[in-house]
Amino acid sequence: MIDGAMQDFPLTLDKFLTHAAKWHPQAEVVTAHDGGLARIGYAALHDRARAVSGVLADLGVTTGSRVATLAWNSQAHVEAWYAIMGMGAVCHTLNPRLTAAQLAAMAVQSQAKLLVASADLLPLARRVAERATGIARILVIDGMAEQDATATALEPLLSAAPRDIAWGDFPETAPSGLCFTSGTTGAPKGVTYTHRSSFLHTLRTLQADVMAISARDAVLTVVPMFHANAWGLPFAVPAAGGRLVLPGRHTDGASLARLIRAAEVTVGVGVPTVWLGLLEHLDATGETLPTLRRLIVGGAPMPPALMARLEARLGVAVQTSWGMTELSPSGTVAPPADPARRADVSGKPAIGVDLLLTDADGIALAEQRDVEGHLRVRGAAVVERYFGQDAPATDGNGWFATGDLARIDRAGNLIITGRAKDLIKSGGEWINPAEIEGIVGALPAVAQAAVIGRSDVKWGERPILLVELREPALTDADLLAPLHGRVAPWWVPDAVVRLPAMPLAPTGKIDKIRLRAEYGDA
Amino acid sequence: MIDGAMQDFPLTLDKFLTHAAKWHPQAEVVTAHDGGLARIGYAALHDRARAVSGVLADLGVTTGSRVATLAWNSQAHVEAWYAIMGMGAVCHTLNPRLTAAQLAAMAVQSQAKLLVASADLLPLARRVAERATGIARILVIDGMAEQDATATALEPLLSAAPRDIAWGDFPETAPSGLCFTSGTTGAPKGVTYTHRSSFLHTLRTLQADVMAISARDAVLTVVPMFHANAWGLPFAVPAAGGRLVLPGRHTDGASLARLIRAAEVTVGVGVPTVWLGLLEHLDATGETLPTLRRLIVGGAPMPPALMARLEARLGVAVQTSWGMTELSPSGTVAPPADPARRADVSGKPAIGVDLLLTDADGIALAEQRDVEGHLRVRGAAVVERYFGQDAPATDGNGWFATGDLARIDRAGNLIITGRAKDLIKSGGEWINPAEIEGIVGALPAVAQAAVIGRSDVKWGERPILLVELREPALTDADLLAPLHGRVAPWWVPDAVVRLPAMPLAPTGKIDKIRLRAEYGDA
Repeated sequence: MIDGAMQDFPLTLDKFLTHAAKWHPQAEVVTAHDGGLARIGYAALHDRARAVSGVLADLGVTTGSRVATLAWNSQAHVEAWYAIMGMGAVCHTLNPRLTAAQLAAMAVQSQAKLLVASADLLPLARRVAERATGIARILVIDGMAEQDATATALEPLLSAAPRDIAWGDFPETAPSGLCFTSGTTGAPKGVTYTHRSSFLHTLRTLQADVMAISARDAVLTVVPMFHANAWGLPFAVPAAGGRLVLPGRHTDGASLARLIRAAEVTVGVGVPTVWLGLLEHLDATGETLPTLRRLIVGGAPMPPALMARLEARLGVAVQTSWGMTELSPSGTVAPPADPARRADVSGKPAIGVDLLLTDADGIALAEQRDVEGHLRVRGAAVVERYFGQDAPATDGNGWFATGDLARIDRAGNLIITGRAKDLIKSGGEWINPAEIEGIVGALPAVAQAAVIGRSDVKWGERPILLVELREPALTDADLLAPLHGRVAPWWVPDAVVRLPAMPLAPTGKIDKIRLRAEYGDA
Repeated sequence: MIDGAMQDFPLTLDKFLTHAAKWHPQAEVVTAHDGGLARIGYAALHDRARAVSGVLADLGVTTGSRVATLAWNSQAHVEAWYAIMGMGAVCHTLNPRLTAAQLAAMAVQSQAKLLVASADLLPLARRVAERATGIARILVIDGMAEQDATATALEPLLSAAPRDIAWGDFPETAPSGLCFTSGTTGAPKGVTYTHRSSFLHTLRTLQADVMAISARDAVLTVVPMFHANAWGLPFAVPAAGGRLVLPGRHTDGASLARLIRAAEVTVGVGVPTVWLGLLEHLDATGETLPTLRRLIVGGAPMPPALMARLEARLGVAVQTSWGMTELSPSGTVAPPADPARRADVSGKPAIGVDLLLTDADGIALAEQRDVEGHLRVRGAAVVERYFGQDAPATDGNGWFATGDLARIDRAGNLIITGRAKDLIKSGGEWINPAEIEGIVGALPAVAQAAVIGRSDVKWGERPILLVELREPALTDADLLAPLHGRVAPWWVPDAVVRLPAMPLAPTGKIDKIRLRAEYGDA
């Protein structure tokens, strides 16, 4: 053993805000609010978050307590995050687009006693608390609300709150957050983030070839804080000293355009449908967004036509990405302004993430490049075990099976080709709906396309196509024509269903569970 | 306690090369060699480094062993680093510009039994081994050499070496490297790097606002691997999948220009004097270096005139920085292409580094901005305790005293103003030689300027100016004229000494110990 070495520096998440408060005190968190903007510097936000920790401590929150939040992307939600995590409690984010029954089941699992809720979500919060009787109190942020024995406004408590609650006084492997997957298939499972895992995730995303966030950036975080940590941006943006721009509740095109202009946003981060809404608003009004330079997209396949329209109309470079709740959530991100960028290519893993293609049984494919396989992942911010489960979520070699189908090209770039659970079995052979969706979705007249299996007496399942159209005049033959010669003839859907609006899951992805429930029976 | 969390991922340095070998197998390490280039991809280099571990294991190296290296920046040195550190041994880098007696004293301290040496350094290596009798064997890289009982060429041993020596099979807090400060003042002290500290240092430097290294970069690493880890670039460049370009022994302007063109270098990293040599070569030949986009400089003050010339002549953006061996070594780096960049401003700390200004007794200054103080630093890659010492190198609050004097401007940027130990005490008052050097050194006719104290019967010490001139016609009055009105009259040096060449310490900095020995007595 060698005597003498380097300083101890536990990787705890409070350090991001403390660093921002000291080194970027005037850099701002900007929240869209009542048609205007609420602005605060990191130094002042840090003081407020310290006071929120004091309020929480007064209410009995301590290291290891779970505190639930039911809130939009807002300054007060960021304050609550740092207050909860800084003192060593665990922030359990709830998705307001789920039902009270679903949310209550999660809150019962996490044993949260306190629920922090946006004022306009108080009715839902009350219904959750009625069902999850462990929740003794609702702390209301983002506006005043009617108070009673259960619901208390946070703001009036701040001035008298103690500001000396210790932050970071726990091991770096302590849990910091809890997020239940609200996947499009299967039952929700809880993913427990730790300080260390989210700290290392943050350092990964800050790299020049990943999200490359700079102190000169203003980052519009449309991806919700209630879903997979808003892709870690409430950590990464203060860590870099950038401006964190939060949309609050409203993420329609007009609201986002107004916010991008007012907050001089340089980087936007969100799912593809969000940017489609922005694009359609801009096309309707003729507005421009001169400060915007990059869009980072993920969470759903990026239609090539949409990517091309966004780049042409906004003058931005789009960065595609792939991730999931179990990955904290970033897996791969295409580098900024890559001349070779393509809508279907999600970048390569940065240091800290490793990928493996296997067969359906989890055996590694002998050839890992230019073949399709089942995608497994390993790394510093990848789930090892779901909340409350005894069995690991990983295989014997430490790999987590994502459920995605993928190729990795010769250059090492990831191309997601589908979801294993979405595959359609027709006559004993597999059909990959994602391939069909990609081809039909590339038609400029198609807003969204989904392919599901419909039960079939003869074949077991047969594919059908569901579309939301931008040009209603399109015929079935027009829609199916591009498939001929590009997929096997028996992959061509048996039927086309036109929907006025594609149903979306709470994460913004197409809700295939609902589509299968409504259209899956012959 | 919450059941279920994230995967284990020990922060060990072998992961950088393993990641590069898998995800950037064709990205190259390029070494200037015999007037040509030696090129190898990371996948092949990884295989060779695994074999070097096998050779080392055969020679008795095991976890915790110290292995010394005495070598230039070369592919074989990189292979040796990863071979040593990967298997959990400690890489003790020796500086070939020191004397055999100095190096032997260090090797005795570290108890290295094996010395890896470049072939052209074998005579020095033999003299070191004669004095440090613990060194049982010299393993020769970078060319064949005369062999005997002590010296063995590494290359012929590779093909038969076992390739199954475990890498990364130790705690992340295990020591990885050992570097003795060869400071310009005081006796050398050993700094022990750990896998964790250098891993976190690497993630810090990869950020978009720090060194911002991308897979599309080719990084010319002039800063030596024998000094403070070559600023961590042999870790950071493979981690990002970039091309690592190594100059070997020759770092004169002509050699660097040839290498930059041949290896299509985009980023150069080195001390200011290296770039001065490059500039003078280019001015003499009229050559251009079209691929070069950035220079990262540090290790000594950057003369403003040199920075302006470099930017104008090379079409690059210069990034200034500050660091030291005890910081692994990066402290602060100015962001890439910062429109507000200035030669005297070294950037602000990225997450993982914190700065504090104190008085001479180590008491924090009440005001931390726009005042000069003694600089202390804290962070994940900062020394806690020197090698073999019982006492910590930090104060009671965990701060390490750098010995530098500094200001921090309103925006949080660090401005190094001098070395506390270089201060001159004249008539009971302090004179800061760095201020005088900065003003005189800004004259285009001055290549290098140094101010030291000369003993004085009346005043204790008086400043004298030593200069290396580009235009010999300059008079003493010409040299001192710019000081009038910018420093106190009694700060103006009493004498001017012209030197044909400024003596440099082994790190490339001006050797003030030697200047004081030769010119410090009245």
